[in-house]
This record gives sequence, C-alpha cells and structure tokens, in this order.
Amino acid sequence: MAAAEYTLIYWPMLPGRGEFVRLMFEASGTAYRDLAREPKEKGGGVPAVLRYTRGEVPGPTPFAAPILHHGDRVIAQLPNIVQYLAPRLDLAPAGEAEQVLAHQLQLTIGDVVNEVHDTHHPLGNGFVYEDHPEAALIRARFFREKRLRRWLAYFEAAIERSARGWLVGERLTAVDLSLFQLLEGLAFAFPRAFGEVRAEIPRSMTLRARVAEQLAEYLASTRRLPFSRHGIFRDYPELDGSAG
Amino acid sequence: MAAAEYTLIYWPMLPGRGEFVRLMFEASGTAYRDLAREPKEKGGGVPAVLRYTRGEVPGPTPFAAPILHHGDRVIAQLPNIVQYLAPRLDLAPAGEAEQVLAHQLQLTIGDVVNEVHDTHHPLGNGFVYEDHPEAALIRARFFREKRLRRWLAYFEAAIERSARGWLVGERLTAVDLSLFQLLEGLAFAFPRAFGEVRAEIPRSMTLRARVAEQLAEYLASTRRLPFSRHGIFRDYPELDGSAG
Repeated sequence: MAAAEYTLIYWPMLPGRGEFVRLMFEASGTAYRDLAREPKEKGGGVPAVLRYTRGEVPGPTPFAAPILHHGDRVIAQLPNIVQYLAPRLDLAPAGEAEQVLAHQLQLTIGDVVNEVHDTHHPLGNGFVYEDHPEAALIRARFFREKRLRRWLAYFEAAIERSARGWLVGERLTAVDLSLFQLLEGLAFAFPRAFGEVRAEIPRSMTLRARVAEQLAEYLASTRRLPFSRHGIFRDYPELDGSAG
Repeated sequence: MAAAEYTLIYWPMLPGRGEFVRLMFEASGTAYRDLAREPKEKGGGVPAVLRYTRGEVPGPTPFAAPILHHGDRVIAQLPNIVQYLAPRLDLAPAGEAEQVLAHQLQLTIGDVVNEVHDTHHPLGNGFVYEDHPEAALIRARFFREKRLRRWLAYFEAAIERSARGWLVGERLTAVDLSLFQLLEGLAFAFPRAFGEVRAEIPRSMTLRARVAEQLAEYLASTRRLPFSRHGIFRDYPELDGSAG
C-alpha cells in the first residue's frame, strides 16, 4: 500500500463520528490510512486510539476521537477536522460567507448527532443503555416528537435556499456528506419516526440519494461499517416508539 | 450612540452562550450592539431573537441564538461566531496550526457547556428542571464525579503545553475568554465540586484571574449579566452534591 497522506484514528467497531471523516476521503477519492482498523499487531485496534487520547503521540492531546493525523498535525473535534480537510479535498464551498455557513450547518448536524446519542445515553456516557431505560424512553420520545421534524425541516430549508440541491453553494461539499450520514443514521435508528417525516423533506431525500449514488462503490464495500447497537445510531425499537 | 459594526442577538435574561461572544467584544474594546437587551419598543427583547430564528431577517436562518449580525452576514453557532470574530478583533492566534488548535479547544469547551446544561436538563430542553429531578441528580453526579476533573485537567494540560499561561500561543486569545467563562460558570454552579478540583489546576486559575483583571471594568458593570437559575450554569445545591 502506498503511504497515505492522511490518517484517521477512530474506534474500529462502529461508524460513529469517524464515519463523517471517512466519507470525505471516500467521496473525494483520497487515499487514507484507517489506523485503528488495522490489526493490533501492526499498531492498529483500540490501542491506537488510546495512544492519541493518552498523549503518547507528539502534538496537542485530543480529548476524544475522531482524530486526524496529517504530517506533524494531530487534529481533533469532528467539525474542526471537517473544516481542515474540506479545502484540501476540494470539498469546501468557495468564499468566506459560504464557508462560514457550511461550518454553521456542520455544527448544527453535530448538535443533532449529540441529541441522537443522548436518546440512549440520557444520563451520561459512563452508563450503558440498559442502566436507565426509562429515562431513555422519555428522552427519545421528546426527540421524536419535538425535535426530529424541526431539525429536518431546518436542513430542508437550507437546501431550498441554496437552490442547487446542496446545503451550500452549487455543488457537493463536506457538509452534504455529513447530512447524508445523519439521514442514514436516522433512518436506521428511527425507521418509524423518520418514515413519518421523509415525505416532508424531498430535497434532503434527493441529496441523500445523490450522495449514495456517488458513494455506491464504497457503501457496498467492507470499508463501510454497518450501524449496530454500538455508537450513536442504534436500532432500539422502543426508542422509535414502535414497542413498549 | 455611534452605530456599532457588530450586533449580538441573544436571550436578554441570561448570560448563556451569548456571554462567550460578549466577552470578545469587551476584552477587545470593540463597540457592539446587544440587540435583544434593548427595549422591545426599540426592536429589542425576546422578539428580536425570534425575528432571526424564524427567518424574518435576510440571510441563512439560524437554528438558535447566539447570532452575530455583521454587515449583511447573519452567523450562528457559538464556535462559528468565535472563529469568525477572533481574527477581526485581534483575538486569534497566528498561523493555521494554532488556529486549528484554538478551534479544537473551543469546541471542547462547548462540549463541557453542553454537559453542564444536561445536568439540569437530562431528558431534553423541552422540560423544566423540576420535571425530572431524579434524572438530574444522576446526571449531575456523573458529571461531578467522572467528568469535571477530567475536563479541567485537559485544559490545564493545554495551558501547560503552551507554556505561556494561555491555552494557545503567547497571548490571550478568544478561547482563553471562553475558558474563563466556563470556570466562572462552574464555580457558580458547582461551588463544592469545583472547590475540590481548583487546587489541581493552578494554571487555569491564574488564567481566570488574569482575564478577570483585564475585564474588571466590564465585570463590575451592569452589562455583565449575573448567573442565575436560567440558562446553562445554575446553582442548585443538590446537583452540586451538597444537599439531598
């Protein structure tokens, strides 16, 4: 394998926030090393993540993964990584105003991701879902009934405003990839609740389909990690309001 | 009053996330309009915020406040606003590597702010604290016992690494102001728990004191909104582990 310029460091068993970075490499056809998904014997696996978060790698210590290692730079925080990579991978809009808007939408997607995480971890990430199922039911119901439609309408309006089928500007940029991943995750975790809203967000669904088409080879490959009951998007029927 | 170049739009009754922006104007001696704190009759008050979040102002609609209006630009998401303003107010570090690190730390401060908010709103922001006091007790205890020390040690290490008494680079930048505000809020909301950690973070406490000195006139003024039981940082003794 030729040496890749970029290395992603993220928990190897789940798509999580790392997948948002991975999609940027895949959509732009950029070679990257997916370090923690390499065998432990070759320096990969979970220990690779811990080397970074424990400060055993030169550079500022990240609080958490995903982490990007590029040359001598070690960069953390997903929106920060996206912003750093976007112009380098030709996935940034042109001009400051559109870049600021793209980052604003990226951060808002991050807020939705946090809320989805909290549906199964309402009382802190030091617990497991099974510790507080009643709290999760309340949190998830609030998300489904009061937040999901509002968030999705917000992104739909942004696409409508741009008038070109993308969130910002005239072509696909990094934030579109993140919206794609968010929609994929919501469809997985909340098939019933998301199913009730999808007809109201035609532009978002078209964007999702266009990104899926562009990423078809990747999405069918083993590089694409499936959603499961690890990570952010989890398919607990009771949190989707379809049981209990 | 001379026309200010910058307008901040934020809920007028609480410091919240708006205060992090306000501190940038105050520390840099920049004139700004604090729109929602002006009288309703003059276009201020809560209706001013709603005009923006309901899309009644030209430009991309913000999902939530704080909002910055600068010329024809309407910008939302706190870390985005900080990043936009920092170079304009001479509060950004020099060079891309340090700017990326500053944004990374800014986003991490944002994560702490979210966790603090969730100590009194564990099941969603559509409830009031009194709706789920038992869940809040669990969430707050987790924050105090498993997160607070770890977050604070992280920022302490960043200051130690920079070796100049600031989070990034050789002088005060916007992210230092945000750390100051975070420490102020933690000291208010968790006097007992924060009191137990403060001796372990001497560099952070020195930074806090230096910023307080620089902002002394502002902090003593009526422009500075006090913490209360609205907003992010709230002084419920039971969530600090000092009752119940």
